[in-house]
Amino acid sequence: MRKAVVLLSGGLDSATTLYDAQSKGFQCHCLIFDYHQRHRREIKSAGALAQKAGCSYSIVKINLPWKGSALLDTTMALPKDQSLTRQGIPPTYVPARNIIFLSFAASCAEAIGARNIFIGTNAIDYSGYPDCRPEFMRSFQVMLAKGLKTGIEKKTIHLRTPLIRKTKAQIVKLAVRLKVPLELTWSCYKGGAQPCGACDSCRFRAKGFSEAQIKDPAFKI
Amino acid sequence: MRKAVVLLSGGLDSATTLYDAQSKGFQCHCLIFDYHQRHRREIKSAGALAQKAGCSYSIVKINLPWKGSALLDTTMALPKDQSLTRQGIPPTYVPARNIIFLSFAASCAEAIGARNIFIGTNAIDYSGYPDCRPEFMRSFQVMLAKGLKTGIEKKTIHLRTPLIRKTKAQIVKLAVRLKVPLELTWSCYKGGAQPCGACDSCRFRAKGFSEAQIKDPAFKI
Repeated sequence: MRKAVVLLSGGLDSATTLYDAQSKGFQCHCLIFDYHQRHRREIKSAGALAQKAGCSYSIVKINLPWKGSALLDTTMALPKDQSLTRQGIPPTYVPARNIIFLSFAASCAEAIGARNIFIGTNAIDYSGYPDCRPEFMRSFQVMLAKGLKTGIEKKTIHLRTPLIRKTKAQIVKLAVRLKVPLELTWSCYKGGAQPCGACDSCRFRAKGFSEAQIKDPAFKI
Repeated sequence: MRKAVVLLSGGLDSATTLYDAQSKGFQCHCLIFDYHQRHRREIKSAGALAQKAGCSYSIVKINLPWKGSALLDTTMALPKDQSLTRQGIPPTYVPARNIIFLSFAASCAEAIGARNIFIGTNAIDYSGYPDCRPEFMRSFQVMLAKGLKTGIEKKTIHLRTPLIRKTKAQIVKLAVRLKVPLELTWSCYKGGAQPCGACDSCRFRAKGFSEAQIKDPAFKI
């Protein structure tokens, strides 16, 4: 069975990506990041999702003492009640987050002999983060070919982004078709008992379910 | 004063790179990585070097549970008594190590407003690691321009590799000229009380001092 490393945050997109990878026949190892994020409870969701899917996983603990993001610095406000189509990059951007996550994924993939990395980034209904865009993913793929031992050996590690050009509604529909346990997923940037409904992540999720005309199941973990 | 992030392992090359950056007028913040390396005592050297140079520093703790390297897995033997010009990549290669380190450096640089990252990699007297080569560095620079907020804003973060085309003897001579406190540097891959003299890192260092006709000062930390 072909191995894959899957970045799993515990949200709708990464859970759907995991199930998509499994549906394509990959044996998945999930990487879950504890980076002192404001919404650390997503880690619990990610672990539950990996277990439910029958996958092995590693929780990678990292620390970014320089912060520089409202997801790391709780004294910074989360944006809310703004247009989801606003210009510019919001303060929830974490400097180099996907660059760091994918670097660990590359290390893991090479060490366990996986030739595929799945990441659930999306560049349609998203917050404008530069490290979610196709052009970033392409450049990362090129960089891996130069920087990894497997690159030198011409054994490409493929970066797979099955959701990158889908709308949130399309992702919700795909999740339902793949039988993703949506009740386990956590998207909210806040760390409360229930999703806040106001942050960008909650609102993109709500938009997706609304446009797909599917009811978001109650959060159950 | 222009800010720079400097990757500081505590060895000859990174220490020389730090002093080179300072000599060029950069205000340096050093990143020191604790990645459960076999030779964790290099961290002590790195801290002492940063302090001696009057620089701020962060110790970034990371864990690579998948190992895949003789520097992480103490059950794997370190290569010794082999030709330093042998073919292939030795087992001390850590999958994606510089990719991970540079990712953190990019995050730090963006967060603190530094536009320069210094890394002391060398592609002449080296172990053949793919992530030390100029072509890797160029591809990483391109990737940063696509994946960072500062990239979108056309504020380039420059990756600087002042040693990349120098021989080890040239690095030793530069270190002496820059008054690098060589007695604080630690290059050995083993974690003993004194350098082993047999590992690749020790032998490259010895070759450099020998060819530069300079005596390596006794290790003093």
